[in-house]
Amino acid sequence: MNDNNYAIIMAGGIGSRFWPISRTSHPKQFIDILGTGKTLIQQTYDRLLKICPKENIYVVTNEIYTDLVRKQIPDMADGQILTEPVMRNTAPCIAYGCFKIESINPNAAIVIAPSDHLILDEAAFVATIEKSLTAATQHGCLVTLGIKPSRPDTGYGYIQYTDKILNSEFHKVKTFTEKPTLEIAKTFIQSGDFLWNAGIFVWSVKAILTAFKKYLPEIDDIFEEAKPVYNTDDEKGYIHNAYQQCTNISIDYGIMEKADNVYVIPSEFGWSDLGTWASIYQLAEKDEAGNATIPAEKVVMYDSSNNMVSVPEGKLVIIKGLHDFIVVESNNTLMISPRSEEQGVKQIVADVKQKFGTKFI
Amino acid sequence: MNDNNYAIIMAGGIGSRFWPISRTSHPKQFIDILGTGKTLIQQTYDRLLKICPKENIYVVTNEIYTDLVRKQIPDMADGQILTEPVMRNTAPCIAYGCFKIESINPNAAIVIAPSDHLILDEAAFVATIEKSLTAATQHGCLVTLGIKPSRPDTGYGYIQYTDKILNSEFHKVKTFTEKPTLEIAKTFIQSGDFLWNAGIFVWSVKAILTAFKKYLPEIDDIFEEAKPVYNTDDEKGYIHNAYQQCTNISIDYGIMEKADNVYVIPSEFGWSDLGTWASIYQLAEKDEAGNATIPAEKVVMYDSSNNMVSVPEGKLVIIKGLHDFIVVESNNTLMISPRSEEQGVKQIVADVKQKFGTKFI
Repeated sequence: MNDNNYAIIMAGGIGSRFWPISRTSHPKQFIDILGTGKTLIQQTYDRLLKICPKENIYVVTNEIYTDLVRKQIPDMADGQILTEPVMRNTAPCIAYGCFKIESINPNAAIVIAPSDHLILDEAAFVATIEKSLTAATQHGCLVTLGIKPSRPDTGYGYIQYTDKILNSEFHKVKTFTEKPTLEIAKTFIQSGDFLWNAGIFVWSVKAILTAFKKYLPEIDDIFEEAKPVYNTDDEKGYIHNAYQQCTNISIDYGIMEKADNVYVIPSEFGWSDLGTWASIYQLAEKDEAGNATIPAEKVVMYDSSNNMVSVPEGKLVIIKGLHDFIVVESNNTLMISPRSEEQGVKQIVADVKQKFGTKFI
Repeated sequence: MNDNNYAIIMAGGIGSRFWPISRTSHPKQFIDILGTGKTLIQQTYDRLLKICPKENIYVVTNEIYTDLVRKQIPDMADGQILTEPVMRNTAPCIAYGCFKIESINPNAAIVIAPSDHLILDEAAFVATIEKSLTAATQHGCLVTLGIKPSRPDTGYGYIQYTDKILNSEFHKVKTFTEKPTLEIAKTFIQSGDFLWNAGIFVWSVKAILTAFKKYLPEIDDIFEEAKPVYNTDDEKGYIHNAYQQCTNISIDYGIMEKADNVYVIPSEFGWSDLGTWASIYQLAEKDEAGNATIPAEKVVMYDSSNNMVSVPEGKLVIIKGLHDFIVVESNNTLMISPRSEEQGVKQIVADVKQKFGTKFI
C-alpha cells in the first residue's frame, strides 16, 4: 500500500430526504440503512482501508457529529476527525482536508469520498481508485469517477466526456449537467457519452491546491493563511473562525466545471447514492410479493405487495391490503406514504417543523 | 336513591377484537378507547352511581385484572371486586354476584351491566333502568334491555317481542336470535318486532335465584353451597375452587332463552357495544375528510380520507395517500389494515400467537 495515498470522507450532510429515519441529530451516513450490520460511513471507511494506510484516512464532518464518528470508527484518532462549525458545501470541506494533508505530506494523492453512498463491488471500486491515483499523480489532473448510467435518472448529475484520453481510460470532461429533465436525461443516455457524477474525486494534493488558487482564490487564501496551525493545538479554534468566512460553494461548481485538466473514468462498481427511499427499496431484499422489510423479523403481511417497511427492531407490524407504500418508523415518528410520492418528504419535513417545531426534525 | 338497588359490572372479557390496542393483560374495558378521558369501565361505574349507592356496585372480573379495577375505580372496596380464576362465560359470573348480594340483602334489585359498552344518553339510560327495577320488583320478572335497531347489523343478537305488556312498556320476549345473516337481519328490521340484545339485565335477586335453581341447577348448587362463606375471609378461596367446576355457559343460553318470565323494554340511549373498530370509527369525531384520529394531536394527513388512526400519545404520524384504513399502534405493535377487513383481526391474533408466542397477545 502506497504511503502517499490519502482519503477524505465527507460526512457533514443532514440527510433530510430520509426523515424520519434520518434526523438532523443522526443523519443517514451514521445509519445502517440497508440493515447490513454496518452504517454507511463504516462501510465507506472499510472500503478505503483497502486503498490507504488507516492513519491517512480523514473525516470532515459537522462538529455535532464528532461523537458519532468516534463511536462508529473507533480506530480513527481525534486528529483525523476534521470538524466544521457550519455547513459550507463541499469546496471548503475539501480545501480544509487537502491543505491539512499537504502540510503533512506534499506528495499526497487523495481520494475524496462521500460517506453515505453504497458500493456493491468493492474490488472494482478499489481497482478504479488505484488507476485514478496513478493517473492523477502522473498527469497532475483532477479525476472524477463517472458511473455508466443504467436509466435516465433525473435525480443525478451527468458528466459528458470527450475522446481525449489519458492512460487509455481517462476521458477529458466536456460538461457537467445537474439533474436534467427526463427528456434531456433520455437524450444523454442515447448519446452514449454521458456518465453519472458520483461525487468521488481523485487528485494529487499539488493539483487540487493549484486549482483552488486559480478558481477559488478566496477559499485558498483562508486555508493558506491557516498553514502555521495545521496539526497543532490551535487548528480547531482557528479553523472554527476561518470557516465562517468561507463561501458556500460546491467543488463541482467552484472547480470541476471550470478547470481544464478534469478527467473522468467510466466506472461500474454497483454504485448508488441511496438518495431516495426508491433507491433503498431497489437494493433491499424483497419477498416474492415485492415487499422489502428492514429488519424483517417481525413484519407480517397479508395481501400486500411492493411495500418498503422499516421499523425499529423488535416492533411487530401487521400490514393488510397495502400496496406500493413506504411504512417507516423511527424516533417516535411513523410515516405511511406511497412509494411514488417520496419526493414529498422535504415538504413533509417543512410542515412538521412549522407545526411542531424542531422536536421531530 | 333506593338502598335495595344493586349493580354488577361484568368485566372479565379479554377484548381480542381490539388487538393490538386491547391485550389479554389490558383489555378493552380498561382502555379509554374513544379518547374521552375515561376508560369504559370508569364510564360504566359513573353511570351506575346514578342508580345505586356506591357500596352496592360490584365488579366481577378475572383475578388478573384486580389491580386494574382497583386503580381505575379507587372508590371501590376490595369486597366489591369479585374475581374469577378462569373464564366461564356470563352465567357463573352473574350467579356469583347475585348469590353474594342475596346474602347481604334478600330484597335486592340488581342491574347487570357489561363493562365495555358505550352509552351516550345517560339520562335515558338511567330512566330505563329505574323503570326496569320497578317492573322487575313488582312482577318478579327478568328484564332485558332491547335497543331499537337502526340498521340490519349482523354482529348483534336480536330479541323478538310479543304484544303481552307489563307496566305499559315491557314486552314479553318471544325469541332470542344470535348474529343472523344479513338477509334475516333485514327481515327482522322490516317486521318491526325485533330489538338488539344489549346484554343489560334487571331483576330482583329472588327472581334470578329462582331461575338459576330451575334452569341451571348445577351452577345453583355450587353457589348455594357457598352461602356460609359469602362476605367472609374464606369467600375468595372457596369460590376459586368452586368456579373451576362451573359449566361455561352464557346467561342468555342458560336462562333467558328458557325462562317464561322474560320481558324486554324497547330502549334508545345511544348504545354501542363498541364491538369492532368500525363501531369506534362511527362514533369518533372525524375531520372533513372523514379521518378519525385518537388522540389527534400529532397526526398529519395528506390526500387521505376515511381512516381511523389510533397511536400512543406523543407519537408523530404522517399519512399520505391512504384511504379507508385502520392504523393502530399500541404496545410495540403496529397494525395497518383496511377498515372493511377488521373481522380478520381474530385470524391475525391467531397467526401472531403461532409465529411469536403470546408475547404480543
